[in-house]
Amino acid sequence: MRISAVTAIPFVLPYRRPFHMASGTVTEAAHVLIRIETDEGISGVAEAVSRSMIYGESQASIVEAVRAWLAPGLIGLDPFATERAQLVLRSVVANETAKGAIDIALHDLRGKALGQPSWRLLGAAAPSLRVAHMLGMGAISEVVAEAVAARDEHGIEAFKVKIDGELESGMRLLGALRAELGPAAVLYTDANQSLTAESVVRGLARMAELGVEFLEEPIPATDVVGRARIAASGGVPIMADESAKTVEAAATQLTAGSARALSIKPARTGYTESARILGLARGLHCRTIIGSQGDSAIGTITSASFGAAFESTAREAAELDYFLGLGDQIVTRSPVISAGRIHVDPSIPGNGVEIDDDKLAHYRVDI
Amino acid sequence: MRISAVTAIPFVLPYRRPFHMASGTVTEAAHVLIRIETDEGISGVAEAVSRSMIYGESQASIVEAVRAWLAPGLIGLDPFATERAQLVLRSVVANETAKGAIDIALHDLRGKALGQPSWRLLGAAAPSLRVAHMLGMGAISEVVAEAVAARDEHGIEAFKVKIDGELESGMRLLGALRAELGPAAVLYTDANQSLTAESVVRGLARMAELGVEFLEEPIPATDVVGRARIAASGGVPIMADESAKTVEAAATQLTAGSARALSIKPARTGYTESARILGLARGLHCRTIIGSQGDSAIGTITSASFGAAFESTAREAAELDYFLGLGDQIVTRSPVISAGRIHVDPSIPGNGVEIDDDKLAHYRVDI
Repeated sequence: MRISAVTAIPFVLPYRRPFHMASGTVTEAAHVLIRIETDEGISGVAEAVSRSMIYGESQASIVEAVRAWLAPGLIGLDPFATERAQLVLRSVVANETAKGAIDIALHDLRGKALGQPSWRLLGAAAPSLRVAHMLGMGAISEVVAEAVAARDEHGIEAFKVKIDGELESGMRLLGALRAELGPAAVLYTDANQSLTAESVVRGLARMAELGVEFLEEPIPATDVVGRARIAASGGVPIMADESAKTVEAAATQLTAGSARALSIKPARTGYTESARILGLARGLHCRTIIGSQGDSAIGTITSASFGAAFESTAREAAELDYFLGLGDQIVTRSPVISAGRIHVDPSIPGNGVEIDDDKLAHYRVDI
Repeated sequence: MRISAVTAIPFVLPYRRPFHMASGTVTEAAHVLIRIETDEGISGVAEAVSRSMIYGESQASIVEAVRAWLAPGLIGLDPFATERAQLVLRSVVANETAKGAIDIALHDLRGKALGQPSWRLLGAAAPSLRVAHMLGMGAISEVVAEAVAARDEHGIEAFKVKIDGELESGMRLLGALRAELGPAAVLYTDANQSLTAESVVRGLARMAELGVEFLEEPIPATDVVGRARIAASGGVPIMADESAKTVEAAATQLTAGSARALSIKPARTGYTESARILGLARGLHCRTIIGSQGDSAIGTITSASFGAAFESTAREAAELDYFLGLGDQIVTRSPVISAGRIHVDPSIPGNGVEIDDDKLAHYRVDI
């Protein structure tokens, strides 16, 4: 079996309402469907998310990287040869989500060729994952109401709390959430690098008291001295995200002691590099959670398949409900979150994604 | 598909001649065949090597660990659920090769169930591996003759040179080998922890001049200060072996800077943990080679399938000719080394091992 084509199809999905993050506001999801075909007619798909404020990628850049640099190196390869494909992917600088999607599509193809769910091929750690909900930004009452709604509608008990540049308001929000949600809820923060080391060190004891599970990227990733100080102050582990986009970057963070947990995002590290990062983190006793990359249902399903396959990610809450904020999907079966969990569907070969061709035709765009 | 039985069958293979190592002399290979069966009639096999001087395991301990501790936790599991199997394996202390063999047998079973070679399922990096020959101990002329024979008979150009307690005689041997084999041959040393840090530091410049590729376990694994000094002296990377029997131990070695390369032995870390170690090593830019655990043809084939599947091991010479020192094998097809390489046979589903039942009946023992 040989790879015969690698295509990139841009599509745009509407948001139900604009989503505010520290890195900016998004109103639509401009993603790219990657499809890898073979001479035997079996194909695999995956979603590349163009998170331009994070990776500097656009729909246009993803389409061009696939067309000009990645597809030529992949065509003719055995699609099972993920290690050889990695050499092709690594020969191209940056373009993380284009490369991540290709690796995930290869795994989809492999599972389909074998008639097996990728979840099972990767290790089948658990049939489902706890889901963490990423709260939007806004007034305390609004954010608390959002958390309560996620709990009441979906049974979600884990929440990522965005903090934007000002620790004290974040602490007030955390206090209000803890009071409303009770001691069992998992709360962790993500400041998207917007705080200072000194303010975080001052707040650490209170955050520990509020039961904050992780501090995701509290301060700039390049402030290595500040990060080491927060880490050394102990109590709440720093979780690396933007600072750990590759296994080497993750190693730098973990060995410097600047982080003790990692956000694993298959959207940028695919399945292969994500598995490498899990190996690294296991050796260093660091926790790993499946992070959201603003994925639609496609990326949600593929991240769930990966995260539930490995024991170290399966035991943590995973950021997998972001797709609910989108107004539509291009899959035939969207994931269902119930009792706070998302289940892998092992009856679907490959990564679990089935594209709705009509929906794809409707949402695809020419760029 | 569910695991229905895990059995351990001890067998003893004769050596062609006694083999001398720093840890002692061996005259026969007292190993154990692990067989995992399922309710669907598909089974997987692997070899557990009872290297008692290294792991404290015996045929009897392997048989008992499988019977009493490991089999009960595995029976009823989906054999694809390697991550769940890992939890069972990790619940038992030590017993490295018993646990490693079970993980490898699970992969064999998986490949057979899918009709695919494990090599392809794991990444299919390269169709073959360069082979390194581990030289025995003896007079310089004898050892040089052994190297020349391995080169002339099998085209081998990579050699591991055993040094036992005395650096200067090792240096003379290295000099003689380099003179005979020329500048292209790969030479690395293994002192099995028998030297002192001071003697190694004194010899480093000469070793670098002789083109020594790695120093495997030059001094005691627990001499952390000494190891750090050798490493800091630079020039020739220390390769961790006995000090890196798990991913956590490997992480300790690599992050302490005490080692910059790892000997990966699927016999003790199986496929799953070995892959984790590869992820760790990649993040830290450390080289990884497939090491010998004194495997018969069975373990040689399974180590080759693993090593050739991953890019980072496929580009190094692998210690895979040890089985040639045994007087017989219990497989239908022994590996062939030609032009210095060992080839994976992708036509055999699973790990590539086919047991010769007559030979097994002949060499199995009651203990």
